[in-house]
Amino acid sequence: MSAACDREELPRDIAVALVVAYDGGPFSGFARQPSADTVQGRIEAALETVLRRTVKTVGAGRTDAGVHALGQIVSFDAHGPDIYPSRLQRSLNALCGAGIVIREVRLAVPGFSARFDASSREYRYRIVSGPAAPLFLERFAWHVRGDLDIEDMRRASQLLLGEHDFRSFCVAESAAGKRTVRRLDAVELHISQELGEECLTVRVVGNAFLHSMVRVIVGSLVEVGSGRRNAEWVGDVLAACERSAAGSTAPPQGLVLHEVGYPSGVWL
Amino acid sequence: MSAACDREELPRDIAVALVVAYDGGPFSGFARQPSADTVQGRIEAALETVLRRTVKTVGAGRTDAGVHALGQIVSFDAHGPDIYPSRLQRSLNALCGAGIVIREVRLAVPGFSARFDASSREYRYRIVSGPAAPLFLERFAWHVRGDLDIEDMRRASQLLLGEHDFRSFCVAESAAGKRTVRRLDAVELHISQELGEECLTVRVVGNAFLHSMVRVIVGSLVEVGSGRRNAEWVGDVLAACERSAAGSTAPPQGLVLHEVGYPSGVWL
Repeated sequence: MSAACDREELPRDIAVALVVAYDGGPFSGFARQPSADTVQGRIEAALETVLRRTVKTVGAGRTDAGVHALGQIVSFDAHGPDIYPSRLQRSLNALCGAGIVIREVRLAVPGFSARFDASSREYRYRIVSGPAAPLFLERFAWHVRGDLDIEDMRRASQLLLGEHDFRSFCVAESAAGKRTVRRLDAVELHISQELGEECLTVRVVGNAFLHSMVRVIVGSLVEVGSGRRNAEWVGDVLAACERSAAGSTAPPQGLVLHEVGYPSGVWL
Repeated sequence: MSAACDREELPRDIAVALVVAYDGGPFSGFARQPSADTVQGRIEAALETVLRRTVKTVGAGRTDAGVHALGQIVSFDAHGPDIYPSRLQRSLNALCGAGIVIREVRLAVPGFSARFDASSREYRYRIVSGPAAPLFLERFAWHVRGDLDIEDMRRASQLLLGEHDFRSFCVAESAAGKRTVRRLDAVELHISQELGEECLTVRVVGNAFLHSMVRVIVGSLVEVGSGRRNAEWVGDVLAACERSAAGSTAPPQGLVLHEVGYPSGVWL
Protein backbone atom coordinates (compact mmCIF):
# COMPACT_ATOMS: atom_id res chain seq x y z
CA MET A 1 0.00 0.00 0.00
CA SER A 2 2.66 2.45 1.09
CA ALA A 3 4.70 2.04 -2.06
CA ALA A 4 1.68 2.39 -4.34
CA CYS A 5 0.44 5.54 -2.60
CA ASP A 6 0.30 8.53 -4.92
CA ARG A 7 2.85 10.87 -3.44
CA GLU A 8 1.34 14.01 -5.02
CA GLU A 9 -1.69 13.45 -2.81
CA LEU A 10 0.24 13.21 0.48
CA PRO A 11 -0.87 15.81 3.01
CA ARG A 12 1.72 18.05 4.61
CA ASP A 13 1.20 16.48 8.03
CA ILE A 14 1.17 12.72 8.36
CA ALA A 15 2.46 10.09 10.73
CA VAL A 16 4.71 7.18 9.83
CA ALA A 17 4.45 3.70 11.37
CA LEU A 18 7.41 1.34 11.14
CA VAL A 19 6.73 -2.40 11.51
CA VAL A 20 9.84 -3.56 13.34
CA ALA A 21 11.30 -6.99 14.18
CA TYR A 22 14.23 -7.37 16.53
CA ASP A 23 16.29 -9.93 18.35
CA GLY A 24 16.10 -8.60 21.90
CA GLY A 25 19.20 -10.51 23.02
CA PRO A 26 21.84 -7.83 22.45
CA PHE A 27 19.75 -4.79 23.45
CA SER A 28 19.03 -3.08 26.79
CA GLY A 29 15.32 -3.22 25.96
CA PHE A 30 13.20 -1.30 23.48
CA ALA A 31 12.90 2.09 25.20
CA ARG A 32 15.49 4.81 24.62
CA GLN A 33 17.98 5.32 27.49
CA PRO A 34 20.73 7.94 27.63
CA SER A 35 23.76 5.64 27.54
CA ALA A 36 22.56 2.15 26.60
CA ASP A 37 22.11 0.35 23.29
CA THR A 38 18.34 0.17 22.81
CA VAL A 39 16.11 -0.59 19.82
CA GLN A 40 14.38 2.79 19.97
CA GLY A 41 17.75 4.55 20.30
CA ARG A 42 19.05 2.79 17.18
CA ILE A 43 15.92 3.62 15.19
CA GLU A 44 15.90 7.28 16.24
CA ALA A 45 19.60 7.66 15.39
CA ALA A 46 18.95 6.12 11.96
CA LEU A 47 15.92 8.39 11.37
CA GLU A 48 17.99 11.42 12.33
CA THR A 49 20.58 10.47 9.69
CA VAL A 50 17.97 9.92 6.98
CA LEU A 51 15.61 12.83 7.74
CA ARG A 52 18.32 15.27 8.96
CA ARG A 53 16.37 16.29 12.03
CA THR A 54 15.73 15.01 15.55
CA VAL A 55 12.88 12.48 15.56
CA LYS A 56 11.01 11.37 18.70
CA THR A 57 9.30 8.03 18.20
CA VAL A 58 6.59 6.15 20.12
CA GLY A 59 6.56 2.35 20.41
CA ALA A 60 3.43 0.21 20.79
CA GLY A 61 5.06 -1.88 23.54
CA ARG A 62 8.02 -1.06 25.77
CA THR A 63 9.58 -4.52 25.68
CA ASP A 64 12.18 -5.30 28.37
CA ALA A 65 15.83 -6.23 27.84
CA GLY A 66 16.06 -9.59 26.10
CA VAL A 67 12.45 -9.61 24.81
CA HIS A 68 12.08 -10.02 21.03
CA ALA A 69 9.61 -8.56 18.53
CA LEU A 70 8.29 -9.57 15.13
CA GLY A 71 5.64 -6.84 14.82
CA GLN A 72 6.55 -3.94 17.10
CA ILE A 73 5.07 -0.67 15.76
CA VAL A 74 7.11 2.53 16.03
CA SER A 75 5.47 5.81 15.03
CA PHE A 76 6.59 9.41 14.47
CA ASP A 77 5.17 12.60 13.02
CA ALA A 78 6.42 13.61 9.58
CA HIS A 79 6.10 16.04 6.74
CA GLY A 80 4.32 14.00 4.06
CA PRO A 81 6.33 15.05 1.01
CA ASP A 82 9.58 14.05 2.83
CA ILE A 83 8.60 10.39 3.17
CA TYR A 84 9.38 7.83 0.45
CA PRO A 85 8.37 4.57 2.16
CA SER A 86 10.46 2.05 0.18
CA ARG A 87 13.53 4.25 0.23
CA LEU A 88 13.09 4.96 3.95
CA GLN A 89 12.80 1.23 4.67
CA ARG A 90 16.01 0.45 2.78
CA SER A 91 17.92 3.29 4.45
CA LEU A 92 16.77 2.35 7.94
CA ASN A 93 17.65 -1.31 7.38
CA ALA A 94 21.12 -0.25 6.27
CA LEU A 95 21.57 2.08 9.25
CA CYS A 96 19.94 0.28 12.20
CA GLY A 97 22.57 -2.46 12.29
CA ALA A 98 22.37 -6.18 13.10
CA GLY A 99 19.42 -7.46 15.11
CA ILE A 100 16.81 -4.96 13.86
CA VAL A 101 14.72 -5.39 10.70
CA ILE A 102 12.28 -2.73 9.46
CA ARG A 103 9.69 -5.01 7.85
CA GLU A 104 7.37 -2.35 6.49
CA VAL A 105 6.85 1.43 6.42
CA ARG A 106 3.20 2.54 6.63
CA LEU A 107 1.69 6.01 6.36
CA ALA A 108 -0.87 7.00 8.98
CA VAL A 109 -3.21 9.88 9.77
CA PRO A 110 -1.75 12.98 11.47
CA GLY A 111 -1.38 12.51 15.21
CA PHE A 112 -1.28 8.70 14.99
CA SER A 113 0.41 7.10 18.01
CA ALA A 114 1.65 3.50 17.85
CA ARG A 115 0.95 3.29 21.57
CA PHE A 116 -2.33 5.11 22.17
CA ASP A 117 -4.12 4.08 18.98
CA ALA A 118 -3.36 0.35 19.40
CA SER A 119 -6.55 -1.68 19.83
CA SER A 120 -4.90 -5.07 20.49
CA ARG A 121 -1.52 -6.59 21.18
CA GLU A 122 -0.46 -10.20 20.67
CA TYR A 123 2.49 -11.73 22.50
CA ARG A 124 3.86 -15.26 22.14
CA TYR A 125 5.92 -17.01 24.79
CA ARG A 126 7.87 -20.22 24.06
CA ILE A 127 8.73 -22.91 26.61
CA VAL A 128 10.85 -26.05 26.15
CA SER A 129 10.07 -28.54 28.93
CA GLY A 130 11.79 -31.74 29.99
CA PRO A 131 15.33 -32.67 31.01
CA ALA A 132 17.06 -31.88 27.67
CA ALA A 133 18.03 -28.22 27.25
CA PRO A 134 16.90 -26.51 24.05
CA LEU A 135 19.66 -26.08 21.51
CA PHE A 136 18.56 -24.04 18.49
CA LEU A 137 15.81 -22.51 20.66
CA GLU A 138 18.14 -21.62 23.54
CA ARG A 139 17.89 -17.88 22.81
CA PHE A 140 14.13 -18.02 22.06
CA ALA A 141 12.58 -20.20 24.79
CA TRP A 142 12.47 -20.78 28.54
CA HIS A 143 13.79 -24.18 29.57
CA VAL A 144 11.54 -25.68 32.28
CA ARG A 145 13.22 -28.87 33.49
CA GLY A 146 10.17 -30.80 34.65
CA ASP A 147 7.22 -32.01 32.60
CA LEU A 148 4.20 -29.72 32.26
CA ASP A 149 0.52 -30.69 32.39
CA ILE A 150 -0.78 -28.63 29.50
CA GLU A 151 -4.46 -29.39 30.14
CA ASP A 152 -4.15 -27.93 33.64
CA MET A 153 -2.41 -24.87 32.20
CA ARG A 154 -5.26 -24.49 29.66
CA ARG A 155 -7.87 -24.62 32.42
CA ALA A 156 -5.99 -22.02 34.43
CA SER A 157 -5.55 -19.75 31.40
CA GLN A 158 -9.32 -19.58 30.88
CA LEU A 159 -9.70 -17.86 34.26
CA LEU A 160 -7.68 -14.93 32.92
CA LEU A 161 -9.94 -14.18 29.95
CA GLY A 162 -12.00 -10.99 29.95
CA GLU A 163 -11.60 -7.74 31.86
CA HIS A 164 -9.84 -8.00 35.21
CA ASP A 165 -7.63 -6.03 37.54
CA PHE A 166 -4.24 -7.58 36.68
CA ARG A 167 -2.36 -5.87 39.54
CA SER A 168 -1.08 -9.27 40.75
CA PHE A 169 0.49 -9.86 37.34
CA CYS A 170 2.78 -6.86 37.02
CA VAL A 171 5.92 -5.33 38.48
CA ALA A 172 4.62 -3.85 41.76
CA GLU A 173 6.39 -0.47 41.51
CA SER A 174 5.09 0.10 37.99
CA ALA A 175 1.48 -0.29 39.17
CA ALA A 176 1.56 2.09 42.14
CA GLY A 177 -1.33 4.53 41.85
CA LYS A 178 -2.18 3.46 38.30
CA ARG A 179 -5.21 1.85 36.72
CA THR A 180 -4.39 -1.84 36.32
CA VAL A 181 -7.56 -3.14 34.66
CA ARG A 182 -6.88 -4.79 31.31
CA ARG A 183 -8.85 -7.07 28.95
CA LEU A 184 -7.49 -10.41 27.71
CA ASP A 185 -9.16 -11.79 24.58
CA ALA A 186 -7.14 -15.01 24.20
CA VAL A 187 -4.71 -17.14 26.18
CA GLU A 188 -3.97 -20.22 24.07
CA LEU A 189 -1.40 -22.99 24.43
CA HIS A 190 -0.17 -25.14 21.60
CA ILE A 191 2.70 -27.53 20.95
CA SER A 192 4.76 -27.10 17.82
CA GLN A 193 8.08 -28.01 16.30
CA GLU A 194 10.32 -24.99 15.81
CA LEU A 195 13.59 -25.69 13.99
CA GLY A 196 12.95 -29.38 14.71
CA GLU A 197 12.68 -28.90 18.49
CA GLU A 198 9.40 -29.35 20.34
CA CYS A 199 8.12 -26.34 22.23
CA LEU A 200 4.99 -25.09 23.95
CA THR A 201 3.82 -21.67 22.78
CA VAL A 202 1.56 -19.52 24.96
CA ARG A 203 -0.29 -17.00 22.76
CA VAL A 204 -1.72 -14.05 24.68
CA VAL A 205 -3.93 -11.38 23.06
CA GLY A 206 -5.31 -8.36 24.89
CA ASN A 207 -6.10 -4.69 24.56
CA ALA A 208 -3.04 -3.58 26.53
CA PHE A 209 -0.54 -5.03 28.97
CA LEU A 210 1.05 -3.97 32.27
CA HIS A 211 4.81 -4.14 32.83
CA SER A 212 5.96 -7.81 32.67
CA MET A 213 2.33 -8.96 32.60
CA VAL A 214 2.79 -11.70 29.98
CA ARG A 215 5.89 -12.99 31.75
CA VAL A 216 4.14 -13.17 35.14
CA ILE A 217 1.13 -14.89 33.50
CA VAL A 218 3.48 -17.48 31.96
CA GLY A 219 5.40 -17.90 35.23
CA SER A 220 2.09 -18.53 37.00
CA LEU A 221 0.81 -20.98 34.36
CA VAL A 222 4.07 -22.93 34.78
CA GLU A 223 3.38 -23.14 38.54
CA VAL A 224 0.12 -24.87 37.57
CA GLY A 225 1.61 -27.01 34.78
CA SER A 226 4.36 -28.30 37.06
CA GLY A 227 1.78 -29.39 39.65
CA ARG A 228 2.90 -26.98 42.39
CA ARG A 229 -0.50 -25.20 42.19
CA ASN A 230 -3.88 -26.24 40.86
CA ALA A 231 -5.66 -24.42 38.05
CA GLU A 232 -8.10 -22.63 40.36
CA TRP A 233 -5.20 -20.94 42.19
CA VAL A 234 -4.91 -18.53 39.23
CA GLY A 235 -8.34 -17.13 40.19
CA ASP A 236 -7.06 -16.52 43.74
CA VAL A 237 -4.03 -14.72 42.33
CA LEU A 238 -6.26 -12.39 40.29
CA ALA A 239 -8.43 -11.68 43.34
CA ALA A 240 -5.43 -10.90 45.57
CA CYS A 241 -4.41 -7.79 43.58
CA GLU A 242 -0.91 -8.23 44.97
CA ARG A 243 2.23 -9.15 42.96
CA SER A 244 3.49 -11.55 45.63
CA ALA A 245 0.43 -13.76 45.10
CA ALA A 246 1.49 -14.75 41.56
CA GLY A 247 4.24 -17.00 40.20
CA SER A 248 7.71 -15.88 39.19
CA THR A 249 8.42 -13.71 36.16
CA ALA A 250 9.32 -15.98 33.23
CA PRO A 251 12.69 -15.04 31.69
CA PRO A 252 12.71 -12.54 28.81
CA GLN A 253 14.20 -14.60 25.96
CA GLY A 254 11.00 -16.68 25.52
CA LEU A 255 8.83 -13.64 24.77
CA VAL A 256 8.02 -12.10 21.38
CA LEU A 257 5.79 -9.08 20.71
CA HIS A 258 4.11 -10.76 17.75
CA GLU A 259 1.61 -8.27 16.36
CA VAL A 260 -0.19 -5.02 17.21
CA GLY A 261 -3.69 -4.24 15.90
CA TYR A 262 -5.16 -0.82 14.99
CA PRO A 263 -8.52 0.39 13.71
CA SER A 264 -8.33 0.38 9.90
CA GLY A 265 -9.08 4.09 9.73
CA VAL A 266 -5.62 5.06 10.95
CA TRP A 267 -3.84 4.15 7.69
CA LEU A 268 -3.50 6.58 4.79
CA MET B 1 15.25 -48.66 26.38
CA SER B 2 18.81 -47.98 27.51
CA ALA B 3 17.84 -47.07 31.05
CA ALA B 4 15.56 -50.10 31.45
CA CYS B 5 18.20 -52.52 30.19
CA ASP B 6 19.15 -55.11 32.81
CA ARG B 7 22.77 -54.34 33.50
CA GLU B 8 23.59 -57.80 34.82
CA GLU B 9 22.94 -59.11 31.34
CA LEU B 10 25.28 -56.70 29.56
CA PRO B 11 27.98 -58.51 27.59
CA ARG B 12 31.63 -57.59 28.15
CA ASP B 13 31.99 -56.13 24.67
CA ILE B 14 29.38 -53.69 23.43
CA ALA B 15 29.24 -50.47 21.46
CA VAL B 16 27.67 -47.23 22.58
CA ALA B 17 25.77 -44.83 20.29
CA LEU B 18 25.28 -41.23 21.38
CA VAL B 19 22.43 -39.28 19.76
CA VAL B 20 23.93 -35.80 19.53
CA ALA B 21 22.52 -32.36 18.70
CA TYR B 22 24.76 -29.37 18.15
CA ASP B 23 24.75 -25.79 17.04
CA GLY B 24 27.44 -25.85 14.36
CA GLY B 25 28.05 -22.10 14.54
CA PRO B 26 30.91 -21.99 17.04
CA PHE B 27 32.68 -25.20 15.94
CA SER B 28 35.31 -25.95 13.28
CA GLY B 29 33.10 -28.78 12.04
CA PHE B 30 32.30 -32.19 13.50
CA ALA B 31 35.51 -34.10 12.81
CA ARG B 32 38.36 -34.07 15.33
CA GLN B 33 41.34 -31.83 14.36
CA PRO B 34 44.57 -31.45 16.34
CA SER B 35 44.21 -27.80 17.35
CA ALA B 36 40.64 -26.71 16.60
CA ASP B 37 37.43 -26.75 18.61
CA THR B 38 35.35 -29.53 17.05
CA VAL B 39 32.26 -31.43 18.17
CA GLN B 40 34.02 -34.79 18.04
CA GLY B 41 36.99 -33.36 19.93
CA ARG B 42 34.71 -32.09 22.71
CA ILE B 43 32.88 -35.42 22.97
CA GLU B 44 36.09 -37.47 23.03
CA ALA B 45 37.60 -35.23 25.72
CA ALA B 46 34.43 -35.60 27.81
CA LEU B 47 34.42 -39.41 27.33
CA GLU B 48 38.08 -39.55 28.39
CA THR B 49 37.20 -37.72 31.61
CA VAL B 50 34.24 -39.99 32.39
CA LEU B 51 35.68 -43.34 31.31
CA ARG B 52 39.30 -42.59 32.33
CA ARG B 53 40.74 -43.86 29.06
CA THR B 54 41.32 -42.64 25.52
CA VAL B 55 38.16 -43.12 23.40
CA LYS B 56 38.13 -43.00 19.61
CA THR B 57 34.65 -42.27 18.26
CA VAL B 58 33.03 -42.58 14.84
CA GLY B 59 30.37 -40.13 13.60
CA ALA B 60 27.59 -40.97 11.13
CA GLY B 61 28.22 -37.77 9.15
CA ARG B 62 31.31 -35.55 9.07
CA THR B 63 29.44 -32.24 9.02
CA ASP B 64 31.40 -29.16 7.93
CA ALA B 65 32.10 -26.05 9.99
CA GLY B 66 28.85 -24.19 10.65
CA VAL B 67 26.55 -27.15 9.87
CA HIS B 68 24.16 -28.13 12.68
CA ALA B 69 22.82 -31.50 13.86
CA LEU B 70 19.74 -32.68 15.71
CA GLY B 71 20.37 -36.44 15.30
CA GLN B 72 24.08 -37.02 14.69
CA ILE B 73 25.12 -40.50 15.87
CA VAL B 74 28.52 -40.96 17.52
CA SER B 75 29.68 -44.49 18.35
CA PHE B 76 32.52 -46.07 20.31
CA ASP B 77 33.48 -49.50 21.62
CA ALA B 78 33.03 -50.09 25.33
CA HIS B 79 33.21 -52.59 28.12
CA GLY B 80 29.54 -53.29 28.89
CA PRO B 81 29.68 -53.24 32.70
CA ASP B 82 31.34 -49.79 32.58
CA ILE B 83 28.39 -48.10 30.87
CA TYR B 84 25.49 -46.60 32.85
CA PRO B 85 23.50 -44.85 30.07
CA SER B 86 21.58 -42.23 32.11
CA ARG B 87 24.61 -41.34 34.20
CA LEU B 88 26.84 -41.19 31.11
CA GLN B 89 24.33 -38.85 29.40
CA ARG B 90 24.26 -36.49 32.38
CA SER B 91 28.06 -36.47 32.73
CA LEU B 92 28.63 -35.82 29.03
CA ASN B 93 26.06 -33.01 29.00
CA ALA B 94 27.85 -31.41 31.94
CA LEU B 95 31.28 -31.81 30.32
CA CYS B 96 30.73 -31.12 26.60
CA GLY B 97 29.98 -27.43 27.14
CA ALA B 98 27.58 -25.04 25.41
CA GLY B 99 26.32 -25.87 21.94
CA ILE B 100 26.34 -29.67 22.28
CA VAL B 101 23.46 -31.74 23.71
CA ILE B 102 23.65 -35.52 24.17
CA ARG B 103 19.99 -36.39 23.58
CA GLU B 104 20.21 -40.12 24.22
CA VAL B 105 22.69 -42.90 24.99
CA ARG B 106 21.95 -46.20 23.25
CA LEU B 107 23.68 -49.57 23.59
CA ALA B 108 24.59 -51.42 20.39
CA VAL B 109 26.04 -54.73 19.29
CA PRO B 110 29.83 -55.16 19.45
CA GLY B 111 31.58 -53.70 16.42
CA PHE B 112 28.70 -51.26 15.70
CA SER B 113 29.84 -48.24 13.67
CA ALA B 114 27.70 -45.11 13.50
CA ARG B 115 29.12 -44.53 10.03
CA PHE B 116 29.28 -47.92 8.33
CA ASP B 117 26.09 -49.40 9.79
CA ALA B 118 23.92 -46.40 8.86
CA SER B 119 21.23 -47.33 6.35
CA SER B 120 19.82 -43.82 5.76
CA ARG B 121 20.58 -40.20 6.53
CA GLU B 122 18.17 -37.28 6.54
CA TYR B 123 19.32 -33.69 6.16
CA ARG B 124 17.16 -30.55 6.23
CA TYR B 125 18.18 -27.27 4.65
CA ARG B 126 16.33 -23.99 5.41
CA ILE B 127 16.05 -21.02 3.06
CA VAL B 128 14.48 -17.60 3.69
CA SER B 129 13.73 -15.89 0.36
CA GLY B 130 12.72 -12.34 -0.46
CA PRO B 131 14.14 -8.91 0.27
CA ALA B 132 13.77 -8.99 4.08
CA ALA B 133 16.67 -10.68 5.89
CA PRO B 134 15.79 -13.41 8.39
CA LEU B 135 16.07 -12.30 11.99
CA PHE B 136 15.53 -15.18 14.45
CA LEU B 137 16.51 -17.61 11.65
CA GLU B 138 19.68 -15.73 10.72
CA ARG B 139 21.93 -18.44 12.13
CA PHE B 140 19.74 -21.30 10.81
CA ALA B 141 18.86 -20.37 7.23
CA TRP B 142 20.29 -19.13 3.93
CA HIS B 143 18.91 -15.75 2.89
CA VAL B 144 18.21 -15.76 -0.88
CA ARG B 145 17.26 -12.21 -1.83
CA GLY B 146 15.06 -12.93 -4.87
CA ASP B 147 11.79 -14.86 -5.01
CA LEU B 148 11.93 -18.61 -5.66
CA ASP B 149 9.63 -20.65 -7.89
CA ILE B 150 9.06 -23.64 -5.65
CA GLU B 151 7.17 -25.70 -8.25
CA ASP B 152 10.18 -25.49 -10.59
CA MET B 153 12.44 -26.53 -7.72
CA ARG B 154 10.15 -29.49 -6.97
CA ARG B 155 10.27 -30.62 -10.63
CA ALA B 156 14.07 -30.36 -10.62
CA SER B 157 14.36 -32.24 -7.33
CA GLN B 158 12.52 -35.26 -8.77
CA LEU B 159 15.33 -35.76 -11.30
CA LEU B 160 17.72 -36.48 -8.41
CA LEU B 161 15.72 -39.37 -6.92
CA GLY B 162 17.11 -42.88 -7.14
CA GLU B 163 20.65 -44.15 -7.65
CA HIS B 164 22.97 -41.83 -9.58
CA ASP B 165 26.61 -40.87 -9.86
CA PHE B 166 26.55 -37.62 -7.84
CA ARG B 167 30.12 -36.60 -8.79
CA SER B 168 28.83 -33.20 -10.01
CA PHE B 169 27.37 -32.56 -6.56
CA CYS B 170 30.44 -32.87 -4.36
CA VAL B 171 33.71 -31.14 -3.58
CA ALA B 172 35.89 -32.20 -6.55
CA GLU B 173 39.04 -33.09 -4.56
CA SER B 174 37.08 -35.31 -2.19
CA ALA B 175 35.77 -37.42 -5.11
CA ALA B 176 39.07 -38.12 -6.88
CA GLY B 177 39.40 -41.86 -7.48
CA LYS B 178 36.39 -42.69 -5.28
CA ARG B 179 33.03 -44.28 -5.91
CA THR B 180 30.51 -41.45 -6.15
CA VAL B 181 27.28 -43.38 -6.72
CA ARG B 182 24.65 -42.69 -4.05
CA ARG B 183 20.89 -43.29 -3.71
CA LEU B 184 18.44 -40.51 -2.88
CA ASP B 185 15.06 -41.65 -1.50
CA ALA B 186 13.43 -38.25 -0.99
CA VAL B 187 13.98 -34.62 -1.94
CA GLU B 188 10.98 -32.66 -0.63
CA LEU B 189 10.31 -28.95 -0.34
CA HIS B 190 7.84 -27.39 2.04
CA ILE B 191 7.06 -23.95 3.42
CA SER B 192 6.71 -23.51 7.15
CA GLN B 193 6.76 -20.90 9.88
CA GLU B 194 9.73 -21.31 12.20
CA LEU B 195 9.76 -18.94 15.19
CA GLY B 196 7.15 -16.89 13.30
CA GLU B 197 9.31 -16.40 10.18
CA GLU B 198 8.44 -18.05 6.87
CA CYS B 199 11.03 -20.41 5.44
CA LEU B 200 11.42 -23.05 2.76
CA THR B 201 12.78 -26.38 4.02
CA VAL B 202 14.46 -28.83 1.64
CA ARG B 203 14.35 -32.32 3.15
CA VAL B 204 16.84 -34.75 1.62
CA VAL B 205 16.97 -38.47 2.51
CA GLY B 206 19.47 -40.93 1.07
CA ASN B 207 21.64 -43.91 1.91
CA ALA B 208 24.84 -41.86 2.14
CA PHE B 209 26.16 -38.48 1.04
CA LEU B 210 29.34 -37.15 -0.58
CA HIS B 211 31.22 -34.17 0.84
CA SER B 212 28.97 -31.04 0.59
CA MET B 213 26.43 -33.00 -1.50
CA VAL B 214 23.30 -31.59 0.18
CA ARG B 215 24.65 -28.04 -0.04
CA VAL B 216 25.47 -28.37 -3.76
CA ILE B 217 22.02 -29.89 -4.39
CA VAL B 218 20.41 -26.93 -2.60
CA GLY B 219 22.64 -24.41 -4.42
CA SER B 220 21.58 -26.00 -7.73
CA LEU B 221 17.87 -26.05 -6.83
CA VAL B 222 18.12 -22.34 -6.01
CA GLU B 223 19.58 -21.75 -9.52
CA VAL B 224 16.35 -23.30 -10.84
CA GLY B 225 14.03 -21.57 -8.36
CA SER B 226 15.49 -18.16 -9.15
CA GLY B 227 14.87 -18.70 -12.89
CA ARG B 228 18.54 -18.71 -13.93
CA ARG B 229 18.19 -22.37 -15.04
CA ASN B 230 15.22 -24.53 -15.95
CA ALA B 231 14.30 -27.69 -14.05
CA GLU B 232 15.70 -30.01 -16.73
CA TRP B 233 19.15 -28.50 -16.31
CA VAL B 234 19.56 -30.57 -13.13
CA GLY B 235 19.52 -33.70 -15.30
CA ASP B 236 22.35 -32.25 -17.40
CA VAL B 237 24.32 -31.51 -14.21
CA LEU B 238 23.98 -35.15 -13.07
CA ALA B 239 25.07 -36.42 -16.49
CA ALA B 240 28.13 -34.14 -16.61
CA CYS B 241 29.85 -35.86 -13.64
CA GLU B 242 31.83 -32.67 -13.10
CA ARG B 243 31.54 -30.30 -10.11
CA SER B 244 31.74 -27.18 -12.29
CA ALA B 245 28.46 -28.17 -13.99
CA ALA B 246 26.41 -27.66 -10.80
CA GLY B 247 25.31 -24.58 -8.86
CA SER B 248 27.18 -23.00 -5.98
CA THR B 249 27.54 -24.61 -2.56
CA ALA B 250 24.79 -23.27 -0.29
CA PRO B 251 26.20 -21.78 2.94
CA PRO B 252 26.57 -24.09 5.97
CA GLN B 253 24.28 -22.42 8.51
CA GLY B 254 21.09 -23.56 6.70
CA LEU B 255 21.95 -27.26 7.03
CA VAL B 256 20.97 -29.69 9.79
CA LEU B 257 21.83 -33.40 9.99
CA HIS B 258 18.33 -34.32 11.12
CA GLU B 259 18.32 -38.08 11.63
CA VAL B 260 20.32 -41.24 10.87
CA GLY B 261 18.64 -44.62 10.35
CA TYR B 262 20.00 -48.09 11.25
CA PRO B 263 18.72 -51.65 10.91
CA SER B 264 16.84 -52.47 14.12
CA GLY B 265 19.15 -55.42 14.83
CA VAL B 266 22.04 -53.18 15.85
CA TRP B 267 20.52 -52.11 19.19
CA LEU B 268 20.95 -54.12 22.37
